[in-house]
Formats: sequence, C-alpha cells, structure tokens
Amino acid sequence: MSVLIVGSTALDSIKTPQAENPRLLGGSASHAAVAASFFAPVKMVGVVGEDFPKKYVTLYKKHRIDLAGLQVQRGKTFHWAGEYEVNMNQRRTLLTELGVFEKFTPHLPESYKQSPFVLLANIAPALQHHVLDQIARPKFVVADTMDLWLNIALEELLRLLKRIDGFVLNDSEAHQLTQEDNVLAAMRKLHQLGPKFVIIKKGSHGSMLSGPNGCFLCPAYPLPKVVDPTGAGDSFVGGLMGYLSTARGAVQTNIRRAMVYGSVVASFCCEGFGLSRTTRVKSAEIEKRVEELERLTRF
Amino acid sequence: MSVLIVGSTALDSIKTPQAENPRLLGGSASHAAVAASFFAPVKMVGVVGEDFPKKYVTLYKKHRIDLAGLQVQRGKTFHWAGEYEVNMNQRRTLLTELGVFEKFTPHLPESYKQSPFVLLANIAPALQHHVLDQIARPKFVVADTMDLWLNIALEELLRLLKRIDGFVLNDSEAHQLTQEDNVLAAMRKLHQLGPKFVIIKKGSHGSMLSGPNGCFLCPAYPLPKVVDPTGAGDSFVGGLMGYLSTARGAVQTNIRRAMVYGSVVASFCCEGFGLSRTTRVKSAEIEKRVEELERLTRF
Repeated sequence: MSVLIVGSTALDSIKTPQAENPRLLGGSASHAAVAASFFAPVKMVGVVGEDFPKKYVTLYKKHRIDLAGLQVQRGKTFHWAGEYEVNMNQRRTLLTELGVFEKFTPHLPESYKQSPFVLLANIAPALQHHVLDQIARPKFVVADTMDLWLNIALEELLRLLKRIDGFVLNDSEAHQLTQEDNVLAAMRKLHQLGPKFVIIKKGSHGSMLSGPNGCFLCPAYPLPKVVDPTGAGDSFVGGLMGYLSTARGAVQTNIRRAMVYGSVVASFCCEGFGLSRTTRVKSAEIEKRVEELERLTRF
Repeated sequence: MSVLIVGSTALDSIKTPQAENPRLLGGSASHAAVAASFFAPVKMVGVVGEDFPKKYVTLYKKHRIDLAGLQVQRGKTFHWAGEYEVNMNQRRTLLTELGVFEKFTPHLPESYKQSPFVLLANIAPALQHHVLDQIARPKFVVADTMDLWLNIALEELLRLLKRIDGFVLNDSEAHQLTQEDNVLAAMRKLHQLGPKFVIIKKGSHGSMLSGPNGCFLCPAYPLPKVVDPTGAGDSFVGGLMGYLSTARGAVQTNIRRAMVYGSVVASFCCEGFGLSRTTRVKSAEIEKRVEELERLTRF
C-alpha cells in the first residue's frame, strides 16, 4: 500500500564546522518521502516556488515519488539556513524565508484521498488538520512535530492529537509538552492526549515506543562520523511509515521492525549533507545495517 | 569464582528535591560489592573509621561479602554530601570529608591474592595500581574511574590503562579523555591506550561495549521514577563483574549478558536512596527485569 506524506519542501543552506552547502534539497516531506520510497510507493503533498531546481524534481522522480500533490507556485521556495556546532547536537537557525510556504494550503488530488497510511510530517498543525479533513478513512495516521508548534500552535496540536494513531516527537519536545523529565511518565501523559502509539526520539541514543503491545527500545545505528543530521528525524519517521505500509499483518506487530528500518535510513541521512547520502542508498545497504543492529543488540 | 573489589567505602548524605538522607552507606566499593554479591562471592578492600555504623557491617555480611580486606582505622569514615536537581542529571557536591580515606593504603590479605576477577572500582589510580601490584596473575581486571582522576591523576590513570583488560567510564569522561565527541571514535582512541574491552556508560541511555567480538549496545532498564542515582555506575560494573566471574565460557562471549545484568542491578539502585533498594533485591526480581529487557529490545 502507498503512503501519503505531507510536510515542508524546502531549500536548506547548511553550515557545519567542516563545510558549507547552499540550497540543498530539504524539508520534512522531502526527507520523509525519500526515506519511505525504499519500502513503498509515496504520494507527496507540498509546495515549491518557481525557483525550485529541476534537478530536485528529477531526484523525487528517481525515487518514484508521486508529485501530483506538489504545488508549484509563483514566488520563492521555502529557504532555511542553519549552522551546526562541533558536536552536531547544537544548531542555530541563521535564516528562514517562508516564500510560497507562507500561504500554503495543501490540496489533495483525488488519487490521494484513499491513502491508507498517512504521515503528517513536521509542518503547522493547521495544515496537518487540513490534510486529514480531505482523506476518507485512513488506516493509520502518524504525526511528527517540532518545538515551534508547541510554542505558537499548541491548541491546534492538542486537537490534532485526538485525530491521529501515532505521535512522534523528540525528548525535549516531550518534556516541554508534558512537563515530565521521565520518559515513561511523559509517554503516559502523551497517551492521555490521544495517540495509541507514542514514539520519543532521542537522537544518537535511539528512540522509544509505547503502544498497545508495550514498550520497545529502538537502537540508533552507531556512526563513526556524522556529517549533517538535518532531516534525520524526518527520515526516521518516513522510513518507519514506508515499511509499515507494505508489511503484512497488524501495525502493532510490525511497528518495532518499522522503527529499526526508520532508524537505519536516518543513519544514512546523517552521513551526507542534505539528502546526498540518502538518495544514493541501496536496499542491500539498508538490510545490512538492520542485520548489524540485530547483532549489536543481541545478548 | 570470586571477585575482588577495591574502591571507596563511605557515608553519603544525599539530598534530592523530595528528601534528605544523611549518612547512608555509600562509596564505589559498597555499591559494586553488593551488586556483585547477587552472582558471586565478593572479597572487598576498603577502609572505614571508628564511626562506621555496625548496621552497615551487618549489611555487608548479609550479602556474604568477605571483609578481611576492610580496614578499620582511627578517625572518621569518608563522608560525601551531594544534592540533585529536579531532573536527577545534575548533581553538586556539598561536602567532601576524606577522613581515614586520606591516608588509605589497600593491603590485600593472603586469601585475596589469587583472585581471578578484579574490579578496581572508582578510587585514586595510585591505589588501583597498588592493588594490582599485590595480585598474582588475575584472569580479568576491570577499572572504573571518574572525572576527578582525569583532572588530577591523569598520568597514573594512563599508566593503569596499560595494566587492565577492561575500562569503564561515562560518556563525558570519555569525551574529556579523548577529545572525541563521537562514541566510536572515542572508543577507538581508548583501545589505543591499552584496554581490550571499553565500556562507555550513558546513564538512562544505557551503555556501549567495544571488545574483541565487536560492539554491543546495552539497554538501560526504563524506570518510571528515579529516586537516587548515586552509585548506579558502581552497581552496573559490580553486577557485571559478579556475573562474569561465575559465568561459564569466555569473557568475550559472556560480557554482553554481564552488562545487561549490571544494568538491571543499577536500575534497582536508582529506585531507592543509597543502597536501600539494592539490598532488598531478590534474584527472581533481577531475572524478571533481564527478561523484560529482552522483550523490550527484540524486533
């Protein structure tokens, strides 16, 4: 089955202590869609401006991403610039030019409206709602978010949590939303807000699931070198949803393995600037790292 | 086989946002010895003053810890006082009274000198050396440390690393010692300093081993509430060495499971002040959490 992904489609200018890369393909939808494409057909929803490089459209197409829901509007593509510190855990935003993203309203083509698996990647909760409003009866809906929406759109986000099956956020966001330092306590509170599945991302420390079949501690694939972690969280949830949408059986049974696959795709994402490494990944490389993670965690 | 443990034996006064507990049984050797006692006979080396409460000697004995190497000297027992912040990750030392610990020279009774498994728990590197000097031909020696020794006794610590099989330290210490942010890179550098086995502790994020059979990602047991993390690292390495010393087969094969057992004992340690929870643990409770960790990590 295919997976519908809505989120941002952007140009990212990324600076690290080692290098500077202007106007890379970025955005939560781009990262999630490419990650999901290794496992399932993807239908993407997003918006770009007239300046959006053709080579990036070609890249989407190379991954067989359905672009019927990608609007091209007059104006400039959303542009974000950020800088990482030496340890790659701290980053600061240098520039945010919303461009055509400012007035974006996602419209779903008819061919998208029966999508069983829906990923509301990081984007304003109002737009996540708007996408859900247009879909018939999805089988499994997951939403990602970021601290910005906790700060400026909390009410809409809380309303969204009642409409989704799975909620993905990082540990600091979980703390901000629940006021709980303890991960298990935070997860309990997040379940009370709606979602049956809660996944807390902890960067290089992996992620943790709480769901109907209990908890799962998902490892991160240990990397000898992180080049650029931008989009790793989007790749994780994209890979997860791509895997889930084609796996046989119940979501609650498949989700652990789906997280491991997501984690592996995220590891490749970190090994190159923007999508440069992810877009060159072969399926066999993904399988190899999943097997390695099995070996790394067995006792 | 028995395990020899040298380290500090102290009285800990611990303050958390919830409670204040004066003069609890503490110190790296106390925590490590009780943890190891669930798996193996323990021979402890340490020093206490005349003020050391009898009830704590009784507690050691309840765990069948051999106290032939515990000196009782004129003066006061090492006393440490510390305070934790709300999130339990930050702590500050309020008081350090070395007492009899200041002039401590560990003397090994004859009955200790053939110990095959030796744990040099956190204590000054010079004293760790002094213990090794007195032992015939140990099978497996592990040393723990702390940031203090990196700051004031680096040379002796580096010399120690050439004499041990396994080195255990936490992530911030590994960073301080190697100047590497990346865990794999730090481990590579630590191997170059001597030890064949390197274990980096990451608190609630678990720990990681690098050894002759590759790497292992050891999970931490997720706790709904942390009461007092003091001694968790000592419990981890104590449980690990206790398990290792009685497991059949090669160290490099058993060490993964040994880490998991250590991790579980450390989880109990965090659930009470000082050793109050650890000393009440039943073997069946340890086995139950190990099984739970298997379920929590399987995919």
